[in-house]
Amino acid sequence: MASNGEPQVRRRHDPSRRSFASDNYAGAHPAVLAALQAANGGHQASYGADEYTARLGDVFRTHFGEACEVFPVFNGTGANVVSLQAMTRRWDAVICSESAHINVDECGAPEKVAGLKLLSIPTDHGKLTPELVASRLTGIGDEHRAQPRVVSLTQSTELGTCYSVDELAALCEAAHRSALAVHMDGARICNAAASLGVGLGDLTTDVGVDVISFGGTKNGLMLGEAIVVVNPGAVAGIGYLRKAAMQLASKMRFISVQFEALLGGDLWLSNARRANELAARLASAAGAIPGVRITHPVEANAVFALIPTAVAARLRLRHSFHTWSESTGEVRWMTSFDTTEDDVDRFAADVAAEMAAQDERA
Amino acid sequence: MASNGEPQVRRRHDPSRRSFASDNYAGAHPAVLAALQAANGGHQASYGADEYTARLGDVFRTHFGEACEVFPVFNGTGANVVSLQAMTRRWDAVICSESAHINVDECGAPEKVAGLKLLSIPTDHGKLTPELVASRLTGIGDEHRAQPRVVSLTQSTELGTCYSVDELAALCEAAHRSALAVHMDGARICNAAASLGVGLGDLTTDVGVDVISFGGTKNGLMLGEAIVVVNPGAVAGIGYLRKAAMQLASKMRFISVQFEALLGGDLWLSNARRANELAARLASAAGAIPGVRITHPVEANAVFALIPTAVAARLRLRHSFHTWSESTGEVRWMTSFDTTEDDVDRFAADVAAEMAAQDERA
Amino acid sequence: MASNGEPQVRRRHDPSRRSFASDNYAGAHPAVLAALQAANGGHQASYGADEYTARLGDVFRTHFGEACEVFPVFNGTGANVVSLQAMTRRWDAVICSESAHINVDECGAPEKVAGLKLLSIPTDHGKLTPELVASRLTGIGDEHRAQPRVVSLTQSTELGTCYSVDELAALCEAAHRSALAVHMDGARICNAAASLGVGLGDLTTDVGVDVISFGGTKNGLMLGEAIVVVNPGAVAGIGYLRKAAMQLASKMRFISVQFEALLGGDLWLSNARRANELAARLASAAGAIPGVRITHPVEANAVFALIPTAVAARLRLRHSFHTWSESTGEVRWMTSFDTTEDDVDRFAADVAAEMAAQDERA
Amino acid sequence: MASNGEPQVRRRHDPSRRSFASDNYAGAHPAVLAALQAANGGHQASYGADEYTARLGDVFRTHFGEACEVFPVFNGTGANVVSLQAMTRRWDAVICSESAHINVDECGAPEKVAGLKLLSIPTDHGKLTPELVASRLTGIGDEHRAQPRVVSLTQSTELGTCYSVDELAALCEAAHRSALAVHMDGARICNAAASLGVGLGDLTTDVGVDVISFGGTKNGLMLGEAIVVVNPGAVAGIGYLRKAAMQLASKMRFISVQFEALLGGDLWLSNARRANELAARLASAAGAIPGVRITHPVEANAVFALIPTAVAARLRLRHSFHTWSESTGEVRWMTSFDTTEDDVDRFAADVAAEMAAQDERA
Repeated sequence: MASNGEPQVRRRHDPSRRSFASDNYAGAHPAVLAALQAANGGHQASYGADEYTARLGDVFRTHFGEACEVFPVFNGTGANVVSLQAMTRRWDAVICSESAHINVDECGAPEKVAGLKLLSIPTDHGKLTPELVASRLTGIGDEHRAQPRVVSLTQSTELGTCYSVDELAALCEAAHRSALAVHMDGARICNAAASLGVGLGDLTTDVGVDVISFGGTKNGLMLGEAIVVVNPGAVAGIGYLRKAAMQLASKMRFISVQFEALLGGDLWLSNARRANELAARLASAAGAIPGVRITHPVEANAVFALIPTAVAARLRLRHSFHTWSESTGEVRWMTSFDTTEDDVDRFAADVAAEMAAQDERA
Repeated sequence: MASNGEPQVRRRHDPSRRSFASDNYAGAHPAVLAALQAANGGHQASYGADEYTARLGDVFRTHFGEACEVFPVFNGTGANVVSLQAMTRRWDAVICSESAHINVDECGAPEKVAGLKLLSIPTDHGKLTPELVASRLTGIGDEHRAQPRVVSLTQSTELGTCYSVDELAALCEAAHRSALAVHMDGARICNAAASLGVGLGDLTTDVGVDVISFGGTKNGLMLGEAIVVVNPGAVAGIGYLRKAAMQLASKMRFISVQFEALLGGDLWLSNARRANELAARLASAAGAIPGVRITHPVEANAVFALIPTAVAARLRLRHSFHTWSESTGEVRWMTSFDTTEDDVDRFAADVAAEMAAQDERA
Repeated sequence: MASNGEPQVRRRHDPSRRSFASDNYAGAHPAVLAALQAANGGHQASYGADEYTARLGDVFRTHFGEACEVFPVFNGTGANVVSLQAMTRRWDAVICSESAHINVDECGAPEKVAGLKLLSIPTDHGKLTPELVASRLTGIGDEHRAQPRVVSLTQSTELGTCYSVDELAALCEAAHRSALAVHMDGARICNAAASLGVGLGDLTTDVGVDVISFGGTKNGLMLGEAIVVVNPGAVAGIGYLRKAAMQLASKMRFISVQFEALLGGDLWLSNARRANELAARLASAAGAIPGVRITHPVEANAVFALIPTAVAARLRLRHSFHTWSESTGEVRWMTSFDTTEDDVDRFAADVAAEMAAQDERA
Repeated sequence: MASNGEPQVRRRHDPSRRSFASDNYAGAHPAVLAALQAANGGHQASYGADEYTARLGDVFRTHFGEACEVFPVFNGTGANVVSLQAMTRRWDAVICSESAHINVDECGAPEKVAGLKLLSIPTDHGKLTPELVASRLTGIGDEHRAQPRVVSLTQSTELGTCYSVDELAALCEAAHRSALAVHMDGARICNAAASLGVGLGDLTTDVGVDVISFGGTKNGLMLGEAIVVVNPGAVAGIGYLRKAAMQLASKMRFISVQFEALLGGDLWLSNARRANELAARLASAAGAIPGVRITHPVEANAVFALIPTAVAARLRLRHSFHTWSESTGEVRWMTSFDTTEDDVDRFAADVAAEMAAQDERA
């Protein structure tokens, strides 16, 4: 760089600081940066015709079976919307939980980009059931109704819970029986697999999931998600739809090689397992503090808790985390692949101290 | 990495091989990778609330003036569609050249995502003129017509030509006089500035461009484009539109820091200048070969040429490049920031040899 | 006709048969046909530049006040979608009840044509309240959320209930305080006004409704609805949006003149009042039958009832009506402007007879 | 009416006045009004489950063959957009002439409602050819390009010309060979059949047209168009799409019965033939006036002419007609089913007088 007069970009942040705000506050795992370095240099054909993307099918097939096809994209919203477009016709609807990311956190992208009607359902702990899905199967064949075509479930859910393998199998079986395809928003699919102690194929291919939005960014990648089509018969035109949805990377090698780093060995598992373990540690410590109530089973890398608003406010002077419900004051604490035991223990101690201080005030 | 059992991802390509297929066949400049390394580690707030994105405004303002606002996105199609959505109302149309990327190469994203009507115009060498724009200003106020609201021009154009500063000023002036805003697709804006020998603000802010899709990927970034709003009065809701268009990166620091590496010093200029110089070298060499006709002025980093189809086919045994027109056989040769003199000279020699061999055959 | 050899189209149905299936099973009031006849002949400018549409503003202004503007369209879905498009920006959302026609019965048109995100809310008897609306006002200013911009309420509701004038005033006041505009789906607005014993302006203009989908078809027109913009500041581009949404009639005089017939005198009121009275008569008679439960207050021209499925099946051998809920077996009986006392009495007698027969079977 | 106190709507226009502005300035043929009267009264199932719509299939099958299916809609833009949606997948494009109504006069509805990319082509006299279509068949299979799927042609064209049966056959054959389906915008299809002296099936079913937007409004209906699916294999989901596109009439009997009046006998032909004959009469008379140039072959019911702008302005003091080209001053004169010989002769005389007066001024 010095040779062409470029100043180095300097670090502007403290790399020793971490928070419990979100797993996307973390950076990239060092192995991911090393992979980017390996893929750099020289020329490679763009838009996925490179050596790294060519290799990616093999990588994913070891996890998801021989039939699967992989389409790297930029982000989770992109993966979801392209998947759902490819799975639906213009007049279709998608059944999902009310708390689903596609329903809540994508600024209406499914409706605005894909014209999808979402048939959302209130759930316990973010999990659909065959009965809940059945409740939205009305108006089939009625031209006044957008037609249910896909069930979209999130694994692990937005509320930090996991569907068991049996629950997934039952959902997929019921869906297929009703001529619905199954989409899994797997922004945190690795956390779910780690939590359940099963392989990635066990909770997808083997139970009948058709298409997965496979999450990389929240599990240690710099940037990248992948659409994994387990059942090619469930989609149409996905290559065109990816481009039209502005999710086709020109220098795709740099997304693909990150996935190779994640899935070529067991980095996907070690990262996810670590985040999960520290969430459990935090839930255990925080749950033991008088006055703190953990609101959802902690089955992945998120802890939801009810604490007094005043306590949350004081904690925020030193720690960053999200309010989940403005009305109840429920908060969310997330761990990531780089969270440490020490991070957790100090945070739990601060929660305990603020709760105690609150009691004294009361 | 060894410690957690991760195998290193190995290099699968020859980093010494380059082609003339596209500037997006190149990888990332080493300074860009170094910047990614600097920004990694620790936690940073997501979706643009990080230190690197915070800094980005300052970086862009040195080039585009005090009023500008910057919105990093993933790719050029995303930058174009989000920009145009933010500049238009639901019933509007966009005037562009027939060869514009938005009209030809985005799988209909402007229509399919944003519902935009494109009013395209055949041009000489890809460049609009005030007269051409005026020819599409019919039906103003007529409810049967999508209403022209934006002129979108590409600088440098898809045909490797550049608007002069005077041409840009005249276009902007005419557009504004007709109540049209001006969008610049600047996928290769740095090549244009380098070619014209002016600063980035000289051909945008100073002549009246309202919004720019600022290209990074084709000029040495790994992945990243930025919407630069020079005239904030020309857009609305761009933050929401970026998210709904699936162009909001969660770990945005990794896009922002690349732009800091590019624009914080003169990397943008040295990269672009190098690509331009080698295109000129190639055009000069190839243009001197009997039977080769250069079809557009070579004012940036692209060379368009007419060569016999059979020659193109034989050249492709060793070199990769695009056919531009299936009907005429016109080909496109592009240079990039990492093209070398030697690359050019060897390629030109191969062209000459194949042309000579062709003559012998004839 | 005989002169040009055209055979007369012959009547293919029994004009003395009526049902309780829907108010759109009825034909056109004779005064409406007479109006069509009056408007026929000669040439009139198309697309609304005719004498009848010119007059329409005056007609509506007598009901909705001096500021109102009128845009005739073809049908209710069209009126709703054009209204909501004109009231929202690309990134907005609309708050409505879960049972709203826009949410349930338009095949996703709001999402598919307008990209609208609907924020639906379960309600009692189909009626929103300020508290219910407030519950969806989360994420304001958050780019991950489609932004609530409009409250859409239906008057009378899809469940045959009416908002009182005070309830409407409270809803509008709360909406405006939260920077929301108010849209009224008035497919049966005349029934509501007749039921409440107030003028059309009393429950719209005077309480702060901004835009109305004014229903004509269900109250005796052959075909036609009108968008009534009470607050012109609440909409933009409605002329263009009507055309782009394929709701602009070329021979508009024939829609406009029907509205003149309806609203120029008191046909709107006499038609609606009659339908309401007969619904009350039916509710009174049916509600007195042992085992029949009326499920919603009967405040317009619909009666909802729970009857055994087997009874419904036998009734359908002679009468047409809709099942409202496949799961509970709830049915809907609607009256229209041409329903007679005798129709009601015979139907009620048949319900009573079948209920009695059912008891004997049990 | 008197009995319920309704004032009759009074006639507000002069039924003896006609113009050459557009065939949609005309009213409804008396046989059409009579048909509406016949269909009125009593109850009929809504949304097309009525006796008149049930009969409609038979009526159309006599013209278009046994396989055809019919879907009444409100207007031509609706017929076009629903047809094209039903014929395309989300990533497709439609090839059409630059002067096509879908490209020029629908406020971008194909793009805004259906997300269609239009690949428009300049033509002579508004007519596509196999060669012109072939010129847009580039990028097949390339994910960067919206994929051509349909050729949409207009018969008679927007410029008053007709494709011959042989020309249509050649176009359809070429289209099918390239895996394109053929849509005919038949807003004036009856004029074309009358002009060519063939049946409606001769220029559609028999030459391979797949789907037709069958125009009624411009040929004597009050309001109504119909999608005629000649090849059911070429469409999908058309019932849902019609509803989602807001083109499903609730009291559909009133649209269907108009088509029965038009097509059940030979009203379609007598109306169209009359309009055509008077256009020919006008072209003959006007074309003989020194200084008037007829710009397109007069093969249906439109005459395009170049006359001095000042002459056009003076003619407009007494006659209404459209300027077709703001730049050249070209005007369009249209005849309709109710135009008379006297109308034509007086108008031609006025043109002649104004041209002569103009010469004197010069």
